[in-house]
Amino acid sequence: MYRIGIDLGGTNMAFGLVDGEGRLLKKESVPTERDATAEELTEFMARQALSFIDRCGVGRDQVESIGIGCPGACNDEKGILILTVNLPFRYTNIRKIFAGITDIPVHLGNDANCAALGEALFGSGKGASTCLTVTLGTGVGGGIIIDGKIYTGFNGVAGEMGHMVIRKGGVMCGCGRRGCLESYASATALIRETRKAALKHPESLINEICGGDLDKINGKTAFEAMRAGDRAGTRIVKNYIKDLGEGLVNYINIFQPEVILLGGGISKEGEGLLKPLRRYIYRYSYGTKMLARTRIEKAKLGNDAGIIGAAML
Amino acid sequence: MYRIGIDLGGTNMAFGLVDGEGRLLKKESVPTERDATAEELTEFMARQALSFIDRCGVGRDQVESIGIGCPGACNDEKGILILTVNLPFRYTNIRKIFAGITDIPVHLGNDANCAALGEALFGSGKGASTCLTVTLGTGVGGGIIIDGKIYTGFNGVAGEMGHMVIRKGGVMCGCGRRGCLESYASATALIRETRKAALKHPESLINEICGGDLDKINGKTAFEAMRAGDRAGTRIVKNYIKDLGEGLVNYINIFQPEVILLGGGISKEGEGLLKPLRRYIYRYSYGTKMLARTRIEKAKLGNDAGIIGAAML
Repeated sequence: MYRIGIDLGGTNMAFGLVDGEGRLLKKESVPTERDATAEELTEFMARQALSFIDRCGVGRDQVESIGIGCPGACNDEKGILILTVNLPFRYTNIRKIFAGITDIPVHLGNDANCAALGEALFGSGKGASTCLTVTLGTGVGGGIIIDGKIYTGFNGVAGEMGHMVIRKGGVMCGCGRRGCLESYASATALIRETRKAALKHPESLINEICGGDLDKINGKTAFEAMRAGDRAGTRIVKNYIKDLGEGLVNYINIFQPEVILLGGGISKEGEGLLKPLRRYIYRYSYGTKMLARTRIEKAKLGNDAGIIGAAML
Repeated sequence: MYRIGIDLGGTNMAFGLVDGEGRLLKKESVPTERDATAEELTEFMARQALSFIDRCGVGRDQVESIGIGCPGACNDEKGILILTVNLPFRYTNIRKIFAGITDIPVHLGNDANCAALGEALFGSGKGASTCLTVTLGTGVGGGIIIDGKIYTGFNGVAGEMGHMVIRKGGVMCGCGRRGCLESYASATALIRETRKAALKHPESLINEICGGDLDKINGKTAFEAMRAGDRAGTRIVKNYIKDLGEGLVNYINIFQPEVILLGGGISKEGEGLLKPLRRYIYRYSYGTKMLARTRIEKAKLGNDAGIIGAAML
C-alpha cells in the first residue's frame, strides 16, 4: 500500500507518493492558483492528487490515505482547515470536499508539524519515542512528536517552538512579545547580530567575507569568520549557541524527549554547531548527570520531510 | 472496585482508598522510618497498604491497583524507583518487592506528576484533554497530563515546569541555571521581592503588615499590601503576575493545553491573582484571538490530589 503526501504552500503545492517505509518514490509540484477560492483550491488538490496517483502507475485502491501539510491551523479530527496565512482557507471542510471527489481518506496537519513527523518517523528521529524538531530558518518553528504522532494541543496549534520567551523584555518578536527564542536563534537573528558586529568592528573578517556589502551577510557568515579565527565572528557564534542552548535546555526540562532534531538553514553547520551546543545543553539540563540524555542531532530529510510526514498523518 | 494511592514523603507516607470516581474514601498517614533501607521501606509500604485495605473493611480482591507517588524519578514500565531526594531509593525494583507480598499490581509516578494527574482527572481539570498543573510553592513544580496520562518523557523526569528560563542571566536557581521561572514565580521569589521592597520603602505598608519583622513576610504579604492600596505591594504583585504570565504564555504556545491549573500556596489568592493573570496571558499567547483559548483555573484538591492521582496511575 502507498500513501500520498501533499505539501500545500502559498506558491506551489507538492505531491508525493510514499511507501510504507517512508520512502518518497515520486514527487511533483504545481503552482498554487492565487485567485482561487478555498473550495476551488481544495477541489483542485483532490483532482490533482488522483491524476498524480494515475501518473505514478499505481492503482487508486492501492493508496490508503492522502495527507495534507497546511500552512496554518487545522483540526484533523473534523477534517477542517481552520486558518491559513497566505491562502484563503477559513474553516474549510477539506474532508467533505475531498469526499465528493474520491473515497480515499484525507488527513490534515500543520506543515511544520508534518516535517517534524517525517523526521521523527523516517529521518534522524527514527525509532525515538519522543522527538522534538526545531527548525532554525527565517523564523524558528518545528513540532512535537510523541509516540509517533503529532502533538497538536486542544486547538490544533501547539508546538510553536520559536515563541518561548527566554529573555523577557528582549528583542521584539513578530508574535507581539519580546525575547522569544525566535528573536535569538533564527537565521534572521544571527544575520542581525552579524551585521551589527560588522559595523562595530571594521577590522573584523566579516566585512571581508561579505565584500563590504552588509546585505550579503547570511546565516553562514559568522560561522565562516569564526573558522578563519575572527574574534567578532567567534563571539557571535558563541552567543548564538548559548541562546539556542538555553531554549533547548528549556525544552529538555519540559519534555525530556529522546531526541531533539535541528533543521533549517543554520543546522547545515552540522557538528560545528552541534558539538558546542551539546556541551552547553548537557551542562545545564535537568537530571542529565544521572539519567539517560536527550540526543541532539541534525534533521536529514530536508524539504522532503514535510511531504513524507503529511503522507503519514 | 477500589484503588490505593500512596503519597511517599520523606517524613510521612499517606495511604488513601479511592473509588472509581476519584473519591478519597479513607486516608491514613504513618511516619517514614528514616534509617530504613530502600528494601525495608518498600516492604513496609506493601504490608502497610494491605493492612490499610483491611482496616478500610474492603476485600483485597476489590482493590485493582496500588499507585505510589514518589519524591523523585521513576520508571513505571519497569516498576523501578530510580532515584529519590530525601530517601534511600536508588534503582529500587518496587514492583518485584511488592510482588513478594501481594499480587495487587503496583504503579509508580513522580509525586508532583501524581498531583497533576489527580487534578486533571477529578479536580479542576476534569474533562480536559490536556491539562498542565503549575504549583506555586517553595519552588515551582507541576506536571503535564495528556489524554488522562502523565507525560513522563523517555527517562521519567519530564515536566520540570519551574526550570524553564524566562530571563536568561537572571536570578540564580537551585538547578544551576539563571532566570528560571521558579526564581520569579515561586513563593520564595515573591517573599524575596517583598523583603527587598520593605527595606527600600520604609513607608510601605509591607513593614506594618509584618510588624517590622522581615522574617514574618510570606507569600500573602504583598497581596495584602496591594489590597490596602500600598504602592510597593501593588508593584510587586504586578511584576509577579507578568513573570508568571510570561512562563504560562510560553507553556500555552508550546502545549495549547485545554486548561492550566495553578496550585500551591500562592494560588490561594484566587481570582485576585487569576483575573489579571488571564488578561496578560490572553493578550500575548499565540492564536488566542482566533482560536479556542486555554482556561486558567485554580487547582482544588489540595494535598489530596497526590494520593488520588497516585491511585489512578
